[in-house]
Amino acid sequence: MNRSSQEPDPALPRRVLRPARPAGTRVTVGAVEVGGAAFVVAAGPCAVETPAQLSEAAAAVASAGAHLLRGGLFKPRTSPYAFQGLGEPGVALLERARSRHSLGLVAEVLDTEQLASLIDHVDMLQVGARNMQNFTLLKALGKVRRPVLLKRGLAATFSEWLLAAEYLLDGGNEQVILCERGIRTFESATRNTLDLASVALAKARTHLPVMVDPSHATGNRELVIPMALAAAAAGADGLLVEVHPRPEEALCDGAQALTPDMFEDLMRRLPAVLHAVGRSLHARPVPAANVRVL
Amino acid sequence: MNRSSQEPDPALPRRVLRPARPAGTRVTVGAVEVGGAAFVVAAGPCAVETPAQLSEAAAAVASAGAHLLRGGLFKPRTSPYAFQGLGEPGVALLERARSRHSLGLVAEVLDTEQLASLIDHVDMLQVGARNMQNFTLLKALGKVRRPVLLKRGLAATFSEWLLAAEYLLDGGNEQVILCERGIRTFESATRNTLDLASVALAKARTHLPVMVDPSHATGNRELVIPMALAAAAAGADGLLVEVHPRPEEALCDGAQALTPDMFEDLMRRLPAVLHAVGRSLHARPVPAANVRVL
Amino acid sequence: MNRSSQEPDPALPRRVLRPARPAGTRVTVGAVEVGGAAFVVAAGPCAVETPAQLSEAAAAVASAGAHLLRGGLFKPRTSPYAFQGLGEPGVALLERARSRHSLGLVAEVLDTEQLASLIDHVDMLQVGARNMQNFTLLKALGKVRRPVLLKRGLAATFSEWLLAAEYLLDGGNEQVILCERGIRTFESATRNTLDLASVALAKARTHLPVMVDPSHATGNRELVIPMALAAAAAGADGLLVEVHPRPEEALCDGAQALTPDMFEDLMRRLPAVLHAVGRSLHARPVPAANVRVL
Amino acid sequence: MNRSSQEPDPALPRRVLRPARPAGTRVTVGAVEVGGAAFVVAAGPCAVETPAQLSEAAAAVASAGAHLLRGGLFKPRTSPYAFQGLGEPGVALLERARSRHSLGLVAEVLDTEQLASLIDHVDMLQVGARNMQNFTLLKALGKVRRPVLLKRGLAATFSEWLLAAEYLLDGGNEQVILCERGIRTFESATRNTLDLASVALAKARTHLPVMVDPSHATGNRELVIPMALAAAAAGADGLLVEVHPRPEEALCDGAQALTPDMFEDLMRRLPAVLHAVGRSLHARPVPAANVRVL
Repeated sequence: MNRSSQEPDPALPRRVLRPARPAGTRVTVGAVEVGGAAFVVAAGPCAVETPAQLSEAAAAVASAGAHLLRGGLFKPRTSPYAFQGLGEPGVALLERARSRHSLGLVAEVLDTEQLASLIDHVDMLQVGARNMQNFTLLKALGKVRRPVLLKRGLAATFSEWLLAAEYLLDGGNEQVILCERGIRTFESATRNTLDLASVALAKARTHLPVMVDPSHATGNRELVIPMALAAAAAGADGLLVEVHPRPEEALCDGAQALTPDMFEDLMRRLPAVLHAVGRSLHARPVPAANVRVL
Repeated sequence: MNRSSQEPDPALPRRVLRPARPAGTRVTVGAVEVGGAAFVVAAGPCAVETPAQLSEAAAAVASAGAHLLRGGLFKPRTSPYAFQGLGEPGVALLERARSRHSLGLVAEVLDTEQLASLIDHVDMLQVGARNMQNFTLLKALGKVRRPVLLKRGLAATFSEWLLAAEYLLDGGNEQVILCERGIRTFESATRNTLDLASVALAKARTHLPVMVDPSHATGNRELVIPMALAAAAAGADGLLVEVHPRPEEALCDGAQALTPDMFEDLMRRLPAVLHAVGRSLHARPVPAANVRVL
Repeated sequence: MNRSSQEPDPALPRRVLRPARPAGTRVTVGAVEVGGAAFVVAAGPCAVETPAQLSEAAAAVASAGAHLLRGGLFKPRTSPYAFQGLGEPGVALLERARSRHSLGLVAEVLDTEQLASLIDHVDMLQVGARNMQNFTLLKALGKVRRPVLLKRGLAATFSEWLLAAEYLLDGGNEQVILCERGIRTFESATRNTLDLASVALAKARTHLPVMVDPSHATGNRELVIPMALAAAAAGADGLLVEVHPRPEEALCDGAQALTPDMFEDLMRRLPAVLHAVGRSLHARPVPAANVRVL
Repeated sequence: MNRSSQEPDPALPRRVLRPARPAGTRVTVGAVEVGGAAFVVAAGPCAVETPAQLSEAAAAVASAGAHLLRGGLFKPRTSPYAFQGLGEPGVALLERARSRHSLGLVAEVLDTEQLASLIDHVDMLQVGARNMQNFTLLKALGKVRRPVLLKRGLAATFSEWLLAAEYLLDGGNEQVILCERGIRTFESATRNTLDLASVALAKARTHLPVMVDPSHATGNRELVIPMALAAAAAGADGLLVEVHPRPEEALCDGAQALTPDMFEDLMRRLPAVLHAVGRSLHARPVPAANVRVL
């Protein structure tokens, strides 16, 4: 290749790198800001299942202090015979939970067709691990004005993760949050291997906020709290945690869902760790923040 | 979960398993059949770049005995700044090569929107490794009547690979060929680690034909021929090989492309290995096969 | 196999499991105890290189508050042409540092022959990652009365790690500390992938203390402090950290060694994180602890 | 580091590289030569268990055409409660089998102490995967005059494997055969992932013979024959295959042992594949070769 020495290397990220915005990016999601000193917690069920389940989950996470409600409508399932999610009918359930509990909404978008039906109803669009290199989707999300939570692919290198985010920024969307959710390794005692060093490295090399999903990373609710605290100590800007009112009945990933009591315990223990590293838990939005114009 | 013992486990594949079709599936791609005793070779450049490049590549692979022409129009690239493929304008170049050289066409489809523009022009649609769990795409491909070459994801377990194929069969498309192309491991001396045991296992457990891509698996043209021969000895039904008239000028993955001379050498050496395992190279379609009605 | 249902499964660990000693094991290393509420820090150079280097390193880590001095005498090096360590002549240097700074000594033992020359001079024998399944060495260490720091093999599963410890306990040595030091994965942005979930899991499943080596885990001094704090938050009982007075001159693994200033910074930041999870930094032994009879 | 440009890089191998001996190394093991055009097969049980078992296994592999008998005396077992091997008493059993069946002997040596008891009784000393970086053992084996079969570590990179061999050659022992036996990856459908590309790469980059162990690589007897044939097609110089007269009663790794019938089938199928790649099966030593002076 005859690139002149002036041209940047097309294989490397540019816009996501720290020097492009030394002070760091802050992403506003609903009524909270991710990437500043305040730490943000998104919690909720893996999948929206029923009105009662979502309503209980939302009440539980809000009362424990969560800022955002996560809940999957379209579930990417390994098997075609597994529960595929409620789909669009679930949107109304999420919106009701948002208005009742002042919780911003985070939901996964699987493809460009779903984008239209989700974008005006959620506060952040999640790109799942399996879609981290779905470049069609990334290009579409680069053109919208809605924050994107970009999960690291389960076998994505650090560099590939940054380049996936680069697609979003290069497309024009600068409201991007990285999310580490465990990588696939030989170890099978946990569902995945949580790579917290990549969180510290992402904070150092990029200007983007970084959240951590200890639920998918471990696949085991017993390990979620220690990993959540570790993520906070490692410099993450927030958490994405699965909480289910009755995990044993969950249609999806029940083993990794915290019970409401465990989530409360986590939220009680987080502030001290955050304080130890010079951070604090983000304030809960007051009901007024509830009045929301899209 | 209260599944009755009569119900099959929703986490397991069904339709792809060998007992569902003990004699094995044969998939007709253009003028050749994949999955019978005869071994099929698809070859061509990583990406369609220019009329001259494709024309030379097609002439070279046809004259050496390839049955199918591979050539990417839409390239899923790690970096947004890398060459993204010619897109639709390349279709005409592929079709010209097909008619001139009696070569069936294999091209990757990245998303459902591209599907419409490709389906009537190619003989087999390829799902790339990054899209193996793009369930939206799999569901769409389950509804078409065009063979699908399903590449194994670069960190997909054997079981996940089979379940991805299950989405296609469950959707109604039984013309599915599995393709092993190397998995991601700690080893960096090769681009990926070619997992030939998974090929033998797929042949034993499923009724689907299995092809092998030694080019992406190794990332190194020096290793492509030995791995192609090994794939044939291991029981694969065919190969997907990258060939470029001038690899050093390739816009994509040049290091793994065989030169036309090397490809000729491979095609000269394959028949003896195939014969040793009771197979043979598929006959080349005669020009009459060229007359093709979609 | 015709095992009666009374017999335990020979493939599973027994003595290391939590129920075998519900209150947890405390291991006394020199003047400190590992595994109680107090957190212990071992620090020092990868390899003992020169009297001046060790003396400076020991002074630095002691003054910053470390409890134990680590320093390799026999280095397991990937290449036969790399620095192999000072060997036995280094023992005197370590002992001088111990008596001057009230630091317990931790040094790696590579084989049973070295055992005799080390056992009476160090406070804890380290089994390196490459030797985690050196069963000859494990059997020999099962028979001595000296604490053993058992590093997890770089591709050892959680279960294999526990079974390696089981060799030690089954041999009669109950003074065992597990040490997570990163596992080998596809990710090359860091030297290894620190698996903190395995630390939390080891604390839950076994009664053994667990230390973490963030230096080998990351291979990058920039990531050592965040990972050390994360390890503390995740429930580890101590750290093993590389510190070199002049990392750029180190004969071994300089890139991952903290400077004395960085180590001081780490020791200043640790107490708050420990306090947040109900722990504290172990008190530094007073000079009197220095008077030590083996 | 201030290395002059004249000095070779201490991190790289030298003596094992192809340019050090362009024609390739041939290693004489008992009555056969490994590394020439003729292909060599070592077969036998994972562990020597009883006189009857070994005698039947040896008779079976000899009559099917194997050249070398493999049989473990000292077994490196993950659990201390698993069968650890017969130890030295098994040596006489192996020697009897050798003299009765004209089979050279291959046995694993776990440590330097065992070396003395094995070296005069076996034709090749095997270094197991777990010991590939047991540098004490490698240094000792560098000083003996007995061929060494160096298995690749289960998470060893290609470069580390070569450097382990470099320890042997640098120590003075040039009779070294590399052995690929599968690496550890995320895939659990097979015991390990057989990396045949590393075999082709080792043949290209080094002058050492390379053997393949399809039994440990797959952990599944059903996959051993296709992987053995694939290894032959990929350019390997020989095989190490587990064969047990009654695999279901094996004390170690029964699932991966071929039955005598399956082994016979393999030996019937190998010659055609070898012929296809310009090789042939090594001649069986005539009983006279039996008369053996150490």
